[in-house]
Amino acid sequence: MKLIIGNKNYSSWSLRGWLAAKQSGLAFEEIVVPIHTDDWSEQKKAMGEVAPSHGKVPVLWDGDAVVWDSLAIIDYLADKVGRDRFWPKADDARAMARSMVAEMHSSFQALRTQCPMNVRRRIEGVKLDDEARADVVRVLTLWAEARARFGKGGPFLFGTFCAADIFYAPVVSRFITYGVGVPGFGQAYMEAVWEHEWLQAWVHAAEAEDWVIEQYEVPAK
Amino acid sequence: MKLIIGNKNYSSWSLRGWLAAKQSGLAFEEIVVPIHTDDWSEQKKAMGEVAPSHGKVPVLWDGDAVVWDSLAIIDYLADKVGRDRFWPKADDARAMARSMVAEMHSSFQALRTQCPMNVRRRIEGVKLDDEARADVVRVLTLWAEARARFGKGGPFLFGTFCAADIFYAPVVSRFITYGVGVPGFGQAYMEAVWEHEWLQAWVHAAEAEDWVIEQYEVPAK
Repeated sequence: MKLIIGNKNYSSWSLRGWLAAKQSGLAFEEIVVPIHTDDWSEQKKAMGEVAPSHGKVPVLWDGDAVVWDSLAIIDYLADKVGRDRFWPKADDARAMARSMVAEMHSSFQALRTQCPMNVRRRIEGVKLDDEARADVVRVLTLWAEARARFGKGGPFLFGTFCAADIFYAPVVSRFITYGVGVPGFGQAYMEAVWEHEWLQAWVHAAEAEDWVIEQYEVPAK
Repeated sequence: MKLIIGNKNYSSWSLRGWLAAKQSGLAFEEIVVPIHTDDWSEQKKAMGEVAPSHGKVPVLWDGDAVVWDSLAIIDYLADKVGRDRFWPKADDARAMARSMVAEMHSSFQALRTQCPMNVRRRIEGVKLDDEARADVVRVLTLWAEARARFGKGGPFLFGTFCAADIFYAPVVSRFITYGVGVPGFGQAYMEAVWEHEWLQAWVHAAEAEDWVIEQYEVPAK
């Protein structure tokens, strides 16, 4: 099994795909594509060499199967190793986990644009517009509800580390990078994610990269 | 089980959730929220009465479980009735189906904006910008690959009607509405989808609605 990912400092979707591969417990080869530019055509060219026809990371290759989206990677791997490794067992918890993962997959555009993932950067008190602030409130609302209703068994959203934590891990990184203020329960959750050994491994690798995408280094407005 | 959906003429995400509920084979009660305005705050208010806290359709209610996204609805129902009812059995086919569904879930913004779903409308030769044209090409590329590699067993993307057809059904409606030219294989696929009894039932219901959202009636540029 091969996982093609981008730059670890910047590629939030790659982080999700990589955490999913780790969560599967399966061995995989990691191929980092040098997306060290903000020129999309360059990325497409680099990707063309390892994953023709689409040009986006992450991509999972498993024999003849090619999976080119991080949410699809999670469920493809869940099909392979068993759903319980990725999703809560109880119907009501799994309904919420699947919904909040899907919402992250399609939404939060303002937060993404104004706070692009940049693992090694620290900015104090970023200024967000109303839309991005609404995104932050929505994330905290979802975290609070998941933790309160289903988080009894551990420090993560649904107790033990699952697909929902995988999908919100880049948000934890953004909140840290941009100094977004969060209430106590949120801080405790963020610490649990950040201190997870896989996150720490990713952060160290990101810090060791020397690629710089100028566009992502500009402080948010 | 209850499914909350919006206006059948306009709400492409509702169509996906509704087809998913049909595909499950389970009985469900359909609740149509009168989203007869393009004012988002009105929609939120109407939704607040049946599904607090989020304000978007579709929403599936199943006892204590609430699922508020169409992709999450598919996999929640697949968890309930068995994966094979929604996804191809073979790993390589399922990898592609999951990926193209996820891509539709997060992408194709230009096509969506320039061709909002409007089931009862017919426009000849819509003018699309480069980005929307690239979206059309990407959709046709995915359809062609799925049909060629995995479509032997029937007229749908992976042979029999599955989650991928559910997700691309609103695109079929858009291509018809806006007179988007597609090659022969694409026309044959679109006919198969359009003539499906569930699509026909949806179309007849959409035609019977008398709500008009002005914004969606403006011809695309």
